[in-house]
Amino acid sequence: MTQPVTAAMMIIGNEILSGRTQDTNLAYLAKRLNAVGVQVREARVVPDVEATIVKTVNELREKYDYVFTSGGIGPTHDDITSASIAAAFGVPLVRDAEAVRRLEEAYRGTDKLNEARLKMADVPQGAALIDNEVTAAPGFRMENVYVMAGIPKICQAMIEGILPQLRSGVTILSTSISTNLAEGNIAAGLTDLQSRYLDVEIGSYPHFVDGGYRTTLVFRSPDAARNDAAAAELSTIVESLGGELIDTPTA
Amino acid sequence: MTQPVTAAMMIIGNEILSGRTQDTNLAYLAKRLNAVGVQVREARVVPDVEATIVKTVNELREKYDYVFTSGGIGPTHDDITSASIAAAFGVPLVRDAEAVRRLEEAYRGTDKLNEARLKMADVPQGAALIDNEVTAAPGFRMENVYVMAGIPKICQAMIEGILPQLRSGVTILSTSISTNLAEGNIAAGLTDLQSRYLDVEIGSYPHFVDGGYRTTLVFRSPDAARNDAAAAELSTIVESLGGELIDTPTA
Repeated sequence: MTQPVTAAMMIIGNEILSGRTQDTNLAYLAKRLNAVGVQVREARVVPDVEATIVKTVNELREKYDYVFTSGGIGPTHDDITSASIAAAFGVPLVRDAEAVRRLEEAYRGTDKLNEARLKMADVPQGAALIDNEVTAAPGFRMENVYVMAGIPKICQAMIEGILPQLRSGVTILSTSISTNLAEGNIAAGLTDLQSRYLDVEIGSYPHFVDGGYRTTLVFRSPDAARNDAAAAELSTIVESLGGELIDTPTA
Repeated sequence: MTQPVTAAMMIIGNEILSGRTQDTNLAYLAKRLNAVGVQVREARVVPDVEATIVKTVNELREKYDYVFTSGGIGPTHDDITSASIAAAFGVPLVRDAEAVRRLEEAYRGTDKLNEARLKMADVPQGAALIDNEVTAAPGFRMENVYVMAGIPKICQAMIEGILPQLRSGVTILSTSISTNLAEGNIAAGLTDLQSRYLDVEIGSYPHFVDGGYRTTLVFRSPDAARNDAAAAELSTIVESLGGELIDTPTA
């Protein structure tokens, strides 16, 4: 049986921890990784502090098959991710010739390629560049650590560039059904169902609609037939309780 | 001088790590805490796994003044946060009489108060209840750990209930300005500015608008006058580079 391939995400940036910026990269990454059989097991949000970045990435890269970081690779003084990753690996930060070539090409005919922008070509020694279709400034990979931009559009483009390189593990499939019953009404039936489907992870997610609770049940396992079988049994439980199945909300 | 009061958030739930659900509680919590002088220094997203929750909360509650958790306190089998927090503190999970009373009152005249819903009255021995105006089911506090619901509307109501109880530290104020110049154009000036305003944290946040880059600069410190002074100097730099100030985007 295929082993699980695991990942962690490290979201870097004071703006996430101050609440100024709403992260959306984790959800995007998690969905796209799951589609290729890589499971996100943990995420951390850390500030723009080198010692914290170094300690966190060193912990995560030991523990998981892959680590993905977002944020802090731009041209300004508060972009310290590249230097911090170099420190974590104990290697110098070096100016990558290919990254410089790409920046020169992108800024050809302008006077814009200053020292600040050239800083975006600095990577830890031994890093491989990560392409993206949005900007000339690349992300990079050091061993099992993928360093990406924080701007969602660029981060997403880098994720798409990385996906084909990853080792694929078990892909978790899911089946969802929703009901107009509240969680409290189906909880006993769910507990029993889960005990008979130990190979299927059953998640129960309540939400408010029109002042009342609705519940979405998510059945997750690598085996679509088992997910569907558990969902079918839950449908029967819902009907026996006088409830109805409703469209699963997208949120 | 007032010392900083620090906090961490632990977001609990497989649905966040699978990308099914977009967390929004961190940004809300961070903004509200900052308003009362508590700074979020770290956030972790962990799965519904007791050993992981126990280890993570024990690490965070040693390290920060406050820990806030969201998720996993409902009536279903996958709601394991209360039991996990009890395990982390080495105390039994007990049925809280006041919490039962509130649930009985809320469900009076119905047959809905079953064993699953009563499970929401189970808290670690010694916990204090956290009120909220949305539901009868409470969150709870164990020492410096505040355990809250995952549903944003309920989580937010619990946060509002908790805020008056917190010890207040330094409140970080911020001034923001935005420009039509890209980060790379102002980076050198920013580095110089930061070196002269070591007491002000200057963050530079690029965004795409109409196919081009714009940049928002955020000046953060407890001293509004220092923030404004640094922002004013930056405005001068922007003008000297031929740029313009623009309205700061809300996103």
